[in-house]
Amino acid sequence: MSQHAVLLLSCPDQKGLVATIADFLYRNNANILHADQHQDANVGQFFMRVEWDMTDFALDQVALDAGISHFAEQFQMQWRLSFTADRPRVAIFVSGYDHCLVDLLYRHQCGELACDIPLIISNHSGAAPLAEFHGIPFHHIPVTAETKAAAESKQLTLLDENRVDLVVLARYMQILSPRFVGHYPDGIINIHHSFLPAFLGANPYQRAFDRGVKLIGATSHYVTDELDEGPIIEQDVMRISHRDQLDDLIQKGRDLEKTVLSRAVRWHIQHRVLPYANKTVVFD
Amino acid sequence: MSQHAVLLLSCPDQKGLVATIADFLYRNNANILHADQHQDANVGQFFMRVEWDMTDFALDQVALDAGISHFAEQFQMQWRLSFTADRPRVAIFVSGYDHCLVDLLYRHQCGELACDIPLIISNHSGAAPLAEFHGIPFHHIPVTAETKAAAESKQLTLLDENRVDLVVLARYMQILSPRFVGHYPDGIINIHHSFLPAFLGANPYQRAFDRGVKLIGATSHYVTDELDEGPIIEQDVMRISHRDQLDDLIQKGRDLEKTVLSRAVRWHIQHRVLPYANKTVVFD
Amino acid sequence: MSQHAVLLLSCPDQKGLVATIADFLYRNNANILHADQHQDANVGQFFMRVEWDMTDFALDQVALDAGISHFAEQFQMQWRLSFTADRPRVAIFVSGYDHCLVDLLYRHQCGELACDIPLIISNHSGAAPLAEFHGIPFHHIPVTAETKAAAESKQLTLLDENRVDLVVLARYMQILSPRFVGHYPDGIINIHHSFLPAFLGANPYQRAFDRGVKLIGATSHYVTDELDEGPIIEQDVMRISHRDQLDDLIQKGRDLEKTVLSRAVRWHIQHRVLPYANKTVVFD
Amino acid sequence: MSQHAVLLLSCPDQKGLVATIADFLYRNNANILHADQHQDANVGQFFMRVEWDMTDFALDQVALDAGISHFAEQFQMQWRLSFTADRPRVAIFVSGYDHCLVDLLYRHQCGELACDIPLIISNHSGAAPLAEFHGIPFHHIPVTAETKAAAESKQLTLLDENRVDLVVLARYMQILSPRFVGHYPDGIINIHHSFLPAFLGANPYQRAFDRGVKLIGATSHYVTDELDEGPIIEQDVMRISHRDQLDDLIQKGRDLEKTVLSRAVRWHIQHRVLPYANKTVVFD
Repeated sequence: MSQHAVLLLSCPDQKGLVATIADFLYRNNANILHADQHQDANVGQFFMRVEWDMTDFALDQVALDAGISHFAEQFQMQWRLSFTADRPRVAIFVSGYDHCLVDLLYRHQCGELACDIPLIISNHSGAAPLAEFHGIPFHHIPVTAETKAAAESKQLTLLDENRVDLVVLARYMQILSPRFVGHYPDGIINIHHSFLPAFLGANPYQRAFDRGVKLIGATSHYVTDELDEGPIIEQDVMRISHRDQLDDLIQKGRDLEKTVLSRAVRWHIQHRVLPYANKTVVFD
Repeated sequence: MSQHAVLLLSCPDQKGLVATIADFLYRNNANILHADQHQDANVGQFFMRVEWDMTDFALDQVALDAGISHFAEQFQMQWRLSFTADRPRVAIFVSGYDHCLVDLLYRHQCGELACDIPLIISNHSGAAPLAEFHGIPFHHIPVTAETKAAAESKQLTLLDENRVDLVVLARYMQILSPRFVGHYPDGIINIHHSFLPAFLGANPYQRAFDRGVKLIGATSHYVTDELDEGPIIEQDVMRISHRDQLDDLIQKGRDLEKTVLSRAVRWHIQHRVLPYANKTVVFD
Repeated sequence: MSQHAVLLLSCPDQKGLVATIADFLYRNNANILHADQHQDANVGQFFMRVEWDMTDFALDQVALDAGISHFAEQFQMQWRLSFTADRPRVAIFVSGYDHCLVDLLYRHQCGELACDIPLIISNHSGAAPLAEFHGIPFHHIPVTAETKAAAESKQLTLLDENRVDLVVLARYMQILSPRFVGHYPDGIINIHHSFLPAFLGANPYQRAFDRGVKLIGATSHYVTDELDEGPIIEQDVMRISHRDQLDDLIQKGRDLEKTVLSRAVRWHIQHRVLPYANKTVVFD
Repeated sequence: MSQHAVLLLSCPDQKGLVATIADFLYRNNANILHADQHQDANVGQFFMRVEWDMTDFALDQVALDAGISHFAEQFQMQWRLSFTADRPRVAIFVSGYDHCLVDLLYRHQCGELACDIPLIISNHSGAAPLAEFHGIPFHHIPVTAETKAAAESKQLTLLDENRVDLVVLARYMQILSPRFVGHYPDGIINIHHSFLPAFLGANPYQRAFDRGVKLIGATSHYVTDELDEGPIIEQDVMRISHRDQLDDLIQKGRDLEKTVLSRAVRWHIQHRVLPYANKTVVFD
């Protein structure tokens, strides 16, 4: 399969943006495969994702980088350039519930997630056999109130050693410190087992059950210092009725959580998600 | 079409309930058309809806009433007996946005809602021609902070004169007083333009837009003294993306509101909804 | 509100397309509001929709037309240029079932459909009062096997006199002749009360009921000479169960038909739909 | 957890059915947990599912069986009595695609499927490690046109030895002979990777892609001698757009297939599905 480049950028909206980018790509003989853009008129911001085939492209990666830098400065762009050969390196964090982990590992195995998964970190030991089955190193790092800082240091060292780009919290039930979060801005994806902002915090299914809602949901979002308040990447809901007991909600919730988290992870590693203003643009 | 009876009841769960009711109906030669029941084990409560054909039934309405009273007392039942010939009488309240009103009137006209609509009440005058087109008396009762109590008295008098069973707030933008609500326990249905409890109160679409959610919703519920906190009858959601501006949310919201409100109203007038513990059982 | 231009085009995929278009717009000082594009690698075809503000644009409509013609020839483009001030002129055809008509007229009235509706044509007379309520000329043209050709001639004359751009078959139960269809290539939208291609032809709800499906659907499509085989614009489904009788399917189907048809019509008049190879690209 | 009994029955609709059953259960001190019933007025058939706690029940299983037989004969009932302690024994058949198998095994492991899975049968060898990971015997039985009859005999022997109640075809790509199907009436569940009856037979995703549909679906059904024509248990769909290539349809289809098959299997083993007239009643 040929090598693709993906350029993801945002900047203040202004005339000439698309013309400049399209002209740059055309002059260098890019075969554009996908291009998508968006303007948010409220905040005057422009967003773009463009993907092209590198086969006949005139520039190597270094020259390409320099070329983009040139017009990026002119337009005050924030940008990220990725190549399909450079697969994102993803660490999965998990606690006792392993349904999201199982789902992510299977999707990875059958080629749905174009990333490498160099390690799994858990504060429980239960997922070790599953990690072994998939041939992925498993690190059991227990966390208590006393050991939390040390545990996070150990986690960060492991992430660093494994050159991890993205941390996926697959029902990891520990709250990360601002120090940890600060190491991965827009680089930690969480699944919240609720339709945010309906039931923030703990036990959302119990609270949904008590409130008698007719739909339950799940939300995947980037982690920020504000608990459950980061930019939402994806959400979905499932219908429930008076016949559904708390157990049924939890079971249906598992399916929602798997689906919603795996979509968010796939879109992130395909460089489709641009966070801004505590929201996201998700190019489809 | 033959006359049907619908018995809707709830009581503490106990043995012999179904046997007693089924035996009573069988002895009196009921041809049962639908029967559904539910137990909430958490609160130890039993709920039932049974519908039968009155054609060959042995008892007239008075004797039937007496018969039910007999075993209802024994089991401490709360119950309501209805006949298809006795169409519920529904008043629709509306303010400036008329999409729910249009939808309800059309569904009524084409036979989807088996009720009578003796009047429409509005604090605006805009819906008068629509009411006239459908041949329904329209009452324009403006409401200000000063006139609110008097306006409600006028409304209550009209409802009383028209023997109204159900009040539907079809985007009626005034908060009803406890006095008003007290006249219609479990008899006022509201549409809240939001997925409750996500964005209680005013301007939910603006707040959903600001929060960057990926789904918007609507909720229909019985009105209680706690604003937006009454038993939920129905909810639904619609998918949105970064491309949807506030106007798009409002437009999509209109479709949600129509759909969700009309379902709640239909189920109520078909005697399918049993509120309890600030929730509802909705027999389908 | 400022005037917008929308350019919708398709052509064989080739390098330099976007650069040429973006450069043309930039040189003429276009403020681009939305741009979306698509490549179908299977057939080697490129599709684009671009919308910009005409306020500060350097060219008037005639010069713009000439400018586009220039590069369109070079790239073998098929294209259509529209301006928001030039509202599409839509004729609605209806037979006995009026739910889609009611829905379209209300959406038109509240501003969701940016088009003019100069006339309604029906082979029944039932919708006349509704047309009158909305102030739209209503033409009752009965159709029998004998009069069909004459009726179509009369219809075509009316469409011509009213400079109609789009014909919407809102549950119009007559099959149009190839002659009629030939006058409006990609200009007639039908609602088929079924999830195509599941139950082509007549009585799809009856057949869905007999087959015991768990979902029913509706499909809107452009009309071609092959009955029910034209390019699909939109589809949706609704869940049903063993409790739903044929009447329930028909009632739920009405809601589906309204929703699906109105989406297709809105997208068409917003110049979002590009038919090709018996499919459609729908830019969102 | 206490032992539950589930009685699933169907018979010609007639008066006194519910009274007789309810009275029988009450006299024997049943604590009813769930009861649901349905009448199909078109075919004059009655369906019922009732579940009760055996803890204080007056009859043992033999006496219960005799008691039901007594009134079943009177009403010409077809019935099946099950106890939660007697977990259904399920064989899974799989070919090359293992996503449904992975999903079923994980749901089984985490307690969502209250059945035993004594064996997995495949005409490929790829799923062997997965079976081993879950500790389930795996039988590789290749099938060619020549060996098909012998292979089926071998399969039937294995099913017999393992006292299998239900065969789940989890993307098993061989057509079963009428002889095989005849051994398991209403006891083989298949997943068809399509919204039946839209694209019967092979390559439905390719054909959906070619037709340009806007939704793809999956269908689980009981297997009969008519290929793809058996009673439908569950269906679901997913939205697609012009951006989805064939690969995307297949990927989305995998999620649909998993979801739809696992629901059908769960409902079957919970004794919620009653097939009749090439349809199903699914009690929720």
